[in-house]
Amino acid sequence: MTTAEDLAARVREGDLRLHELEAHADADTAAAARRHLLETETGADLSTVGDYSFDAADADSAIENMVGAAQIPMGVVGPVRLDGGAATGERYLPLATTEGALLASVNRGCTAIRRAGGATARVLKSAMTRAPVFRVADVGEADAVVSWVRANEAALRDAAEGTTSHGELREVTPYVVGDNVFLRFAYDTKDAMGMNMATIATQAACEVVEAETPASLVALSGNLCSDKKPAAVNAVEGRGRTVAADVVLPRDLVADVLKTTPEAIAEANTRKNLVGSAKAGALGFNAHAANVVAAAFLALGQDPAQVVEGSNTITTADVRDGDLYASVTLASLEVGTVGGGTKLPTQSEALSVLGVGGGGDPPGSNADALAEVIATATLAGELSLLGALASSHLASAHEELGR
Amino acid sequence: MTTAEDLAARVREGDLRLHELEAHADADTAAAARRHLLETETGADLSTVGDYSFDAADADSAIENMVGAAQIPMGVVGPVRLDGGAATGERYLPLATTEGALLASVNRGCTAIRRAGGATARVLKSAMTRAPVFRVADVGEADAVVSWVRANEAALRDAAEGTTSHGELREVTPYVVGDNVFLRFAYDTKDAMGMNMATIATQAACEVVEAETPASLVALSGNLCSDKKPAAVNAVEGRGRTVAADVVLPRDLVADVLKTTPEAIAEANTRKNLVGSAKAGALGFNAHAANVVAAAFLALGQDPAQVVEGSNTITTADVRDGDLYASVTLASLEVGTVGGGTKLPTQSEALSVLGVGGGGDPPGSNADALAEVIATATLAGELSLLGALASSHLASAHEELGR
Amino acid sequence: MTTAEDLAARVREGDLRLHELEAHADADTAAAARRHLLETETGADLSTVGDYSFDAADADSAIENMVGAAQIPMGVVGPVRLDGGAATGERYLPLATTEGALLASVNRGCTAIRRAGGATARVLKSAMTRAPVFRVADVGEADAVVSWVRANEAALRDAAEGTTSHGELREVTPYVVGDNVFLRFAYDTKDAMGMNMATIATQAACEVVEAETPASLVALSGNLCSDKKPAAVNAVEGRGRTVAADVVLPRDLVADVLKTTPEAIAEANTRKNLVGSAKAGALGFNAHAANVVAAAFLALGQDPAQVVEGSNTITTADVRDGDLYASVTLASLEVGTVGGGTKLPTQSEALSVLGVGGGGDPPGSNADALAEVIATATLAGELSLLGALASSHLASAHEELGR
Amino acid sequence: MTTAEDLAARVREGDLRLHELEAHADADTAAAARRHLLETETGADLSTVGDYSFDAADADSAIENMVGAAQIPMGVVGPVRLDGGAATGERYLPLATTEGALLASVNRGCTAIRRAGGATARVLKSAMTRAPVFRVADVGEADAVVSWVRANEAALRDAAEGTTSHGELREVTPYVVGDNVFLRFAYDTKDAMGMNMATIATQAACEVVEAETPASLVALSGNLCSDKKPAAVNAVEGRGRTVAADVVLPRDLVADVLKTTPEAIAEANTRKNLVGSAKAGALGFNAHAANVVAAAFLALGQDPAQVVEGSNTITTADVRDGDLYASVTLASLEVGTVGGGTKLPTQSEALSVLGVGGGGDPPGSNADALAEVIATATLAGELSLLGALASSHLASAHEELGR
Repeated sequence: MTTAEDLAARVREGDLRLHELEAHADADTAAAARRHLLETETGADLSTVGDYSFDAADADSAIENMVGAAQIPMGVVGPVRLDGGAATGERYLPLATTEGALLASVNRGCTAIRRAGGATARVLKSAMTRAPVFRVADVGEADAVVSWVRANEAALRDAAEGTTSHGELREVTPYVVGDNVFLRFAYDTKDAMGMNMATIATQAACEVVEAETPASLVALSGNLCSDKKPAAVNAVEGRGRTVAADVVLPRDLVADVLKTTPEAIAEANTRKNLVGSAKAGALGFNAHAANVVAAAFLALGQDPAQVVEGSNTITTADVRDGDLYASVTLASLEVGTVGGGTKLPTQSEALSVLGVGGGGDPPGSNADALAEVIATATLAGELSLLGALASSHLASAHEELGR
Repeated sequence: MTTAEDLAARVREGDLRLHELEAHADADTAAAARRHLLETETGADLSTVGDYSFDAADADSAIENMVGAAQIPMGVVGPVRLDGGAATGERYLPLATTEGALLASVNRGCTAIRRAGGATARVLKSAMTRAPVFRVADVGEADAVVSWVRANEAALRDAAEGTTSHGELREVTPYVVGDNVFLRFAYDTKDAMGMNMATIATQAACEVVEAETPASLVALSGNLCSDKKPAAVNAVEGRGRTVAADVVLPRDLVADVLKTTPEAIAEANTRKNLVGSAKAGALGFNAHAANVVAAAFLALGQDPAQVVEGSNTITTADVRDGDLYASVTLASLEVGTVGGGTKLPTQSEALSVLGVGGGGDPPGSNADALAEVIATATLAGELSLLGALASSHLASAHEELGR
Repeated sequence: MTTAEDLAARVREGDLRLHELEAHADADTAAAARRHLLETETGADLSTVGDYSFDAADADSAIENMVGAAQIPMGVVGPVRLDGGAATGERYLPLATTEGALLASVNRGCTAIRRAGGATARVLKSAMTRAPVFRVADVGEADAVVSWVRANEAALRDAAEGTTSHGELREVTPYVVGDNVFLRFAYDTKDAMGMNMATIATQAACEVVEAETPASLVALSGNLCSDKKPAAVNAVEGRGRTVAADVVLPRDLVADVLKTTPEAIAEANTRKNLVGSAKAGALGFNAHAANVVAAAFLALGQDPAQVVEGSNTITTADVRDGDLYASVTLASLEVGTVGGGTKLPTQSEALSVLGVGGGGDPPGSNADALAEVIATATLAGELSLLGALASSHLASAHEELGR
Repeated sequence: MTTAEDLAARVREGDLRLHELEAHADADTAAAARRHLLETETGADLSTVGDYSFDAADADSAIENMVGAAQIPMGVVGPVRLDGGAATGERYLPLATTEGALLASVNRGCTAIRRAGGATARVLKSAMTRAPVFRVADVGEADAVVSWVRANEAALRDAAEGTTSHGELREVTPYVVGDNVFLRFAYDTKDAMGMNMATIATQAACEVVEAETPASLVALSGNLCSDKKPAAVNAVEGRGRTVAADVVLPRDLVADVLKTTPEAIAEANTRKNLVGSAKAGALGFNAHAANVVAAAFLALGQDPAQVVEGSNTITTADVRDGDLYASVTLASLEVGTVGGGTKLPTQSEALSVLGVGGGGDPPGSNADALAEVIATATLAGELSLLGALASSHLASAHEELGR
């Protein structure tokens, strides 16, 4: 049997390359060999990295050149109480982070929302997009290609949907810039986040476009998708789920839990989240939505690079008859309960806590529920941070926690 | 001795609250109690979440309501070869992700860069910012407050720097919108990412502003900072490190490693990353910088919510005398090698692999080196994905990996 | 008969207000009275302002409190040669400006385009939009209102189209932010720029929404229109006409007319218009499109405040087989050949020079033609300025003209 | 003596080119010849275009290929009452537009402001910018060039200021993107709008940069200026004047003049100008600032293409103790009282009405005053339109005016 030390030696000698080890040993041994090599070359101790709780072979669709796992502390907030289109009642929400005070803060917001009877939440739009870019001869040809696409959306749908058992092509929106034609394909990907499904389906549709028109594919993604980039197209039109949550907090509850007044929170929200973000040239008008989105994504097997789109969030807060109305609207929250990181053990366990693991019934309802719970937790996070800012103890909270 | 079951029972009975357990048991028992409670209430199995490799007490500055840890598969790419202002030579870079094909792709780019002799990298700017918002009576008073601030920057510096042994206040930039005055404080925070240091220092400075002028603090963060939101102020002026990396890849190398031509990569970059992002109303003009930033942040103990700012990246690619010149410029990469998540064991081990754990000599040099390596890996990721798009096999690469 | 002096005296005495004069004298006398008053009060001489060439009464739908006219120098460029969807052949284009060197520059570009056989131009999209904002109770009600709108677009169309003999409602796109529902109505307004038509039609549709749903109208324009503001929604989705023009300039022609090379122009375009604008956080990626749009708008009776949207323009320039391919795409050019300022005499005369005055046959074709000619002139302006920059004589051109 | 007909004939015969006529006749005859030619070729009647009120020769620094003038109806609003840093008391403001109802609306706002005792206004920042882009070898060289610039700002100042008797170089801010170095030069240009002064001065500074560093100038404007493009850099950092105006309108006055309540205006402003603009991905958060800026620019000889930057305006409205506080902040209002279009007769007369023609004492004070008056009129326009929207009669107002 080949040992990790042997494999590491063969890499050092140039006999094997770092990514070839799985061909010569099982996945766990290959990972051990890489750790051995790194420890030898760099003097690092990787014993904790190597102390992971899953079969390395089970992670082979998630990573290459595996050496082990990063462990991010996971906690729980809640119960989160909500009246959503897909999720209702109370749910505990696991969050993973290394930012002290975050869970305490979100939890405080959850308490306020729960005591107010729960948030209302809705998925308002759902579509995963992929937008290839094609080269054409000139703007005349661009115009002709766009006309062809509009007249032949059925043919594109057939090609795209032929690649997937679940996905449905919702629409194709063309954009032209000079000799560039972008086609933004939007799919219902049910309980999958859907980026790969959308990519594969779009590739099939592109073959039809290339066969039937003079357009030549330059890149299967032309950045009008727009994946993992801060972009107005997502903030305006949405990507993944567009989901909102809101609540009315009675005045007494604001005083009791958030230690401030509805007026003070509304003022802080207007000056900071609306006017401040406006002056900053922002595509996100919120206090720290990305914190909650990131912590939920890490715990629940979502793609952390898509925190970028999750931050396209607008928070509003107004005084209504002396009480506080507050809302969050996440324009582009990209979540799924099947595929990707959801299959890994800690992530799968966390999804079980939330009760949304795997495919939903009807399809898409689990991912909708996940989106609604994250939106509600984001609302909780906003309320708590706005409350803290309004009562002026942000820095002192951090100080107490010794960071 | 109180057991986890006992504690869980007391929470269920309403005798204790979820966040009070650490007062009644050690941190690991408290976490076990929460897992027990969640398992009973939701039917979930949290055994893997509970199988973490650190003392729960050591994570108490990173999380509240701890139940365990999320495990994210970690792999390694490289060696990354670079000629930087702080980092030179070759480094292995640990990355954690659940996105299959990502490490393989980055690694391919690293190979191309290494065979070309390495990338050039530089930290071009370094400043962590915090921008409180103040209320004033009118624009006349706003003008007066701004004048006072400009004339009294030294007093603000004294107050701010009195709260920190390492940080230095670089500058204070005022912005006015009606009766709102925003002061953007920019700090040199050395090897710390510095958000908390900046917050605490700014709070002290705000007290001076409030004492000496008619301005009233509304929120210690007024969103012109701008933390964890997509905002032009960061893309234009930078936040954390502004860092760039570039390389010239000989034509043969592009063919051999990336299976395409300099012309095809330059075209894909222009049509996708420049024109496509322009049409998308973007603040990030790149292919997938956030993927590399997120994977590095997870492995190395950085704040994953700050992937938002990391995505403010511009990629360029041009043909130079038949070869390929390519660059990435990350306007706002917020990294540190001390504090926050860097203290946790798997993250600390990963930083050791890179050789940048802890404070640098001179101070700031470790965080600079970390930024330069991440920039180089981002360049590698861009080159590889552009190459894949240019040679039209993005979807098929995903298909082969069975996702 | 009341004289201007009498009227002015009565205003001075408080007997009449400045805007009431038309009730007591004909429009020209009223204007004379205001001039008299201003001259007396301020010492200004308004003789040239008063030397206008139309009946003041004919301007009463264009201005209130009239005193006379501003005279902006008008020149002519061209012939502009183009092969468009609505305009073909050669057209002289009047432009009004006070920016010396502008017409010379545009004219140089027109020469280059003409000698290359003309530009290709196309209107790619056409829709004038108005987006009211409604207040709802919560996100649940928002969801319900959006569903109602999607199911009842026909009823909204009937109401909207009942107010206009020409306009057609193309689509209604809903957007939700918390307790705000925005409905973006998009109209085909034929040869009218259409802002007022769209406003009136939308008001009728809003009455239906208010009658049939719990939504309450807060403002007939909710800024998602978005009129006369720099906004990504226009840059991405278009407003008015989305129109593009492009040309291939042979290498020799670039040398002869623009005094530089295709490579130098392509480089200047990439570094300035693409990368520079990207770094600037721009919604316009061009050299000076607004200059041409503004000069055309002034000469031809368009709304100069809509130059804002006209600047949402992307310019591309690439080397093709040694020649220069260049394009401009104006995402949101709002033009009309009937109504508004087009009825005034100098503007009407200028439209006649272009051959597009009044309603087209078929309806909309005159405004399309106007858009295509302006796009071609914008392309000419971009080519000439890029050429000047590439050959480094921008400042000296200004210097020579003595400004 | 050569007649217009003769000249036109020679152009038709190809003997002369359209722009060469001034070499063969006086400027008025040349313009007449062009009109003759256009009339013959297109059938248009240009008699009103030809009926201009200035010597064509006096317009030769403003236009080429002159044919006459566009006449835009001019009216007057006010008096505008303000307490500014440079302008105080009451001023009549000439505005030129073809948008019916605009002056009536602004005038209504002026009445409200005047009856409230006047607006407060301040110029908060003043700098005209020009940002050339240089090519460097790589990011290492970029870093070195930036360091050189920071260390040698005095040398750049000497070179820049050597080209101008009035202008002062305030600062040079470097930005790097890969192998591009942008240097944003910011000047105090006193009473001139200053674009040409800044361009010429920057060219001189660029020669120093090219002589002393390896950087090569690619374009004297690299779009980080950013002139006549919608760009966050201007909205965040300002260009020309950053100017604000605000007012408190007593509750009764809101009812009496604006026919609504402070609460209704504040709500309309929040939902439309803040939340709606946020959702639109805007760089302008206002109702119709561009309308007022455009009308003032046309009447007063400013550059209408710079309405683009003028629209980078944020409007706020809040209830204060039952009254209405409202403000506008124009981040980048580019105005001058000398040079450019200010020398033309109707424009010069209009500046005299305002009392700000020519250079101010101290230098810059006239342009400051102009900025403050425009800001106050913009505030008036915002108040009036918000009032109209809040009381739901926007469309009916347009209907009554028969458009």
